Amino acid sequence: MNYRPESKTAKESLTHMSELVLPNDTNTLGNLMGGRLMHWMDIAAALAAMKHANCPAVTASADNISFENPVKLGNVVTIEAKVTRAFSTSMEVYLKVQGEDLPTQFKYLSNEAYMTFVALDPNGKPRRVPELIPETEEEIRRFEGALRRRQMRLVLSGKLKPEDATELRKLFIEDILSIEKG
Amino acid sequence: MNYRPESKTAKESLTHMSELVLPNDTNTLGNLMGGRLMHWMDIAAALAAMKHANCPAVTASADNISFENPVKLGNVVTIEAKVTRAFSTSMEVYLKVQGEDLPTQFKYLSNEAYMTFVALDPNGKPRRVPELIPETEEEIRRFEGALRRRQMRLVLSGKLKPEDATELRKLFIEDILSIEKG
Amino acid sequence: MNYRPESKTAKESLTHMSELVLPNDTNTLGNLMGGRLMHWMDIAAALAAMKHANCPAVTASADNISFENPVKLGNVVTIEAKVTRAFSTSMEVYLKVQGEDLPTQFKYLSNEAYMTFVALDPNGKPRRVPELIPETEEEIRRFEGALRRRQMRLVLSGKLKPEDATELRKLFIEDILSIEKG
Amino acid sequence: MNYRPESKTAKESLTHMSELVLPNDTNTLGNLMGGRLMHWMDIAAALAAMKHANCPAVTASADNISFENPVKLGNVVTIEAKVTRAFSTSMEVYLKVQGEDLPTQFKYLSNEAYMTFVALDPNGKPRRVPELIPETEEEIRRFEGALRRRQMRLVLSGKLKPEDATELRKLFIEDILSIEKG
Amino acid sequence: MNYRPESKTAKESLTHMSELVLPNDTNTLGNLMGGRLMHWMDIAAALAAMKHANCPAVTASADNISFENPVKLGNVVTIEAKVTRAFSTSMEVYLKVQGEDLPTQFKYLSNEAYMTFVALDPNGKPRRVPELIPETEEEIRRFEGALRRRQMRLVLSGKLKPEDATELRKLFIEDILSIEKG
Amino acid sequence: MNYRPESKTAKESLTHMSELVLPNDTNTLGNLMGGRLMHWMDIAAALAAMKHANCPAVTASADNISFENPVKLGNVVTIEAKVTRAFSTSMEVYLKVQGEDLPTQFKYLSNEAYMTFVALDPNGKPRRVPELIPETEEEIRRFEGALRRRQMRLVLSGKLKPEDATELRKLFIEDILSIEKG
Repeated sequence: MNYRPESKTAKESLTHMSELVLPNDTNTLGNLMGGRLMHWMDIAAALAAMKHANCPAVTASADNISFENPVKLGNVVTIEAKVTRAFSTSMEVYLKVQGEDLPTQFKYLSNEAYMTFVALDPNGKPRRVPELIPETEEEIRRFEGALRRRQMRLVLSGKLKPEDATELRKLFIEDILSIEKG
Repeated sequence: MNYRPESKTAKESLTHMSELVLPNDTNTLGNLMGGRLMHWMDIAAALAAMKHANCPAVTASADNISFENPVKLGNVVTIEAKVTRAFSTSMEVYLKVQGEDLPTQFKYLSNEAYMTFVALDPNGKPRRVPELIPETEEEIRRFEGALRRRQMRLVLSGKLKPEDATELRKLFIEDILSIEKG
Repeated sequence: MNYRPESKTAKESLTHMSELVLPNDTNTLGNLMGGRLMHWMDIAAALAAMKHANCPAVTASADNISFENPVKLGNVVTIEAKVTRAFSTSMEVYLKVQGEDLPTQFKYLSNEAYMTFVALDPNGKPRRVPELIPETEEEIRRFEGALRRRQMRLVLSGKLKPEDATELRKLFIEDILSIEKG
Repeated sequence: MNYRPESKTAKESLTHMSELVLPNDTNTLGNLMGGRLMHWMDIAAALAAMKHANCPAVTASADNISFENPVKLGNVVTIEAKVTRAFSTSMEVYLKVQGEDLPTQFKYLSNEAYMTFVALDPNGKPRRVPELIPETEEEIRRFEGALRRRQMRLVLSGKLKPEDATELRKLFIEDILSIEKG
Repeated sequence: MNYRPESKTAKESLTHMSELVLPNDTNTLGNLMGGRLMHWMDIAAALAAMKHANCPAVTASADNISFENPVKLGNVVTIEAKVTRAFSTSMEVYLKVQGEDLPTQFKYLSNEAYMTFVALDPNGKPRRVPELIPETEEEIRRFEGALRRRQMRLVLSGKLKPEDATELRKLFIEDILSIEKG
Repeated sequence: MNYRPESKTAKESLTHMSELVLPNDTNTLGNLMGGRLMHWMDIAAALAAMKHANCPAVTASADNISFENPVKLGNVVTIEAKVTRAFSTSMEVYLKVQGEDLPTQFKYLSNEAYMTFVALDPNGKPRRVPELIPETEEEIRRFEGALRRRQMRLVLSGKLKPEDATELRKLFIEDILSIEKG
């Protein structure tokens, strides 16, 4: 594993993507198909990760995505992607996906999601990525939450036992514990 | 909301999809992009849901997906999708995604995932779906786990408080509680 | 030309493909275009051939295809492909293509077809493929008919004189001869 | 069925198509996939049929296609399509497909094929098409052969008994008969 | 023609698009094809125009585009589009297209261009668009140049005689005139 | 720079392309999107340039394009491309784009345009192209106009001062001058 490159701020990775919803992107009811949207989200998030790592990066995981509002044919999808935290060779990316009906100027949330990416060297092996420096209040909040979400991923994919997820327990479980014990 | 249609077995919804990984599906390292795979998974899962519901169905959510092994250019992706449980107007679908290198006859797991779909009537309103009858041991296990996963989705999307997630607590938290209290 | 690899059964090559008919796949009357369907059939058949040969395989020919029923926008196309017989370096694949309207649970035949593929080594030269062992009654029937269809292809492409097509004459022509002579 | 529109010449339907073979059109050996080519052939032939019929036309069948030479990535595919004969509501289209390597000015035959199309009225019902007038020697030869090929299609799809295929017998079988009887 | 909607600022129409250059977007030398890039530019510019007009808008013209630097496979294309001036029913959009090689953090100009769009009502007839208010120095400069570019378009498409292009003459020709006469 | 290859006539580069306008090619009003059309034009023009140069050629610029008539969903686009003049390592290509509504036999002009291409050697460096010999009256007229259009491109992209554009002045400006001075 190579030396650690210089730190970078969160906003250096900010990526904007706009896509027009065309007929082939929709189901028979004229709504954007979830899979097409996940495809766009993956590209936007990969671009953010590659901006941070300055090297190719591949999708390692996608967290729970809950599609709140259907996006209609002819509407515009705007995706904002920003790295929230860099680990040794991987990065977590936050995505905010909005739909917009331009004639009525109605803009609505489609979903928010987290995806993780691994940086690769030219041989396809993981390589170190710069540390991420959060600056705004929101960036700091997401930076701090990243550890907890990472443990959640490991628990959900069976790679970490719930009782070893110390960060997760602190925020997700202790409320319950306090009630249980209280 | 209309009357409940007749129950159907899990295997009636079984859907197979095979896709060849072509150049445009891959990143610069020759690996299938995660977003393209999620797009194929969404279509396979939607077909399974529509076979069960006999009506259009739209993606409501995708659970955590962890991409275990990269799928290479020229390999084949096979996706198996099967409904695990039907709720009032929604269905959970289990997906098993495998890659296969045909020359070497090497078949490997890419990922397993759960997605949920909502059945819609011709006006785009949710409509009732048939109950699902699990038959094999594995189908029964996934059927039973569906309640727990559903609570997890609600907790993760902020629609359910952790302390109200009774099913989740039973399996995911009580181990910890027993340790805490023990 | 290299040694002959071990024989394989027909069902080892069985390939399932499901595709949702999207707007761009259809003509102005909302029917799946024949060319798009042939494109999907080619990929499904190539996968079956590659499963049998365990190496890349390219399309050598497509037999007569007669589109029996139009497939509608929003319907699902399911394709089953299975190798029927292996020759020295080529394979014949049988395809069954069905359309399905999920809301009405109506499943109908689109077409049945045969395509042939040639197995290639890494230099792009034809290479030997395993013999195919038919097991079920239907597999045996298609295995036996493969010789006759092969002669038909050669006659139709001008590579074999009709009078030398001994297999073809046996089944396709002798009825007529018996009438002529009778 | 409506009245017969005025006759048209073969060359009025002539359609040219040029396509550049891009990475996604090729298999792992860098050759154009057969299915992609059939997709382009179908569109070119449909355009020729629609030029003749002046209405939408859908693919009814594709005759045997034998791919003579692989078409390489970066080469150009040129397709010429021309209606050979009009029947009551259907048309036969002849296709000549060539590959071309521009740097070496090498042009080669990929395949020749026949496809048939049915003209449709706005309700999707078959409608009459103009008669076709062949002019050149080649057009007349293909016009005359069209009856024989039509019987072949009917025999191959099981809709006509070999002994009733009078045209087919005349040209395809009588050589054999003369030998048999001679 | 309907009443004029309220004025909007230039920055309200600002649209960002990021695209990853994939194999199918490139020619055999691995460079992004000009046509694919013009396709992306058209969508980005249409989104900017639709944000300003709040209704569908169609491409009326594209000004001279000069591709300065090739964009490589695996690089990222970022497009910024902003309305420069609104006429009665049409809008001029300025586009800045950059390529970026993420591993080397090298960002370069691909081209700058102007495209015009016409706003349409639901019957496909031109409809009035809001006036555009330029704010920054650059926006004001582009706003003022828009008249001159508009005359250039009319001259180049033969709809205006050079001697009637008063704005054009002022800036493009008078230098010459002064030399001629001087 | 290598020796100059033999001259070729304009008609040797003639390229025909036909495309059917499918749903994904259109905006929400059912009209072909300008960007999709420019993408097709670029491929047709590149083929013409590559036929002339017998080597890969990349887009250098596209002149003003004015979309005269919308092309409707289901219509056919036919593009004719022909090299008008060869410079040292670049070529100008003339494009004529027409739409056609087959049922009504209505054929209309979409636009006419000029694009320029640079011929490249295997290392991606510009290489010499054959001289072009115009034959018909129209070919001679376009050949002669090519110098003037070339200066216009250089002026518009800021690479040539208006007062140095001698060809341009002759035809585009002298009318005005004569008026000014007259």
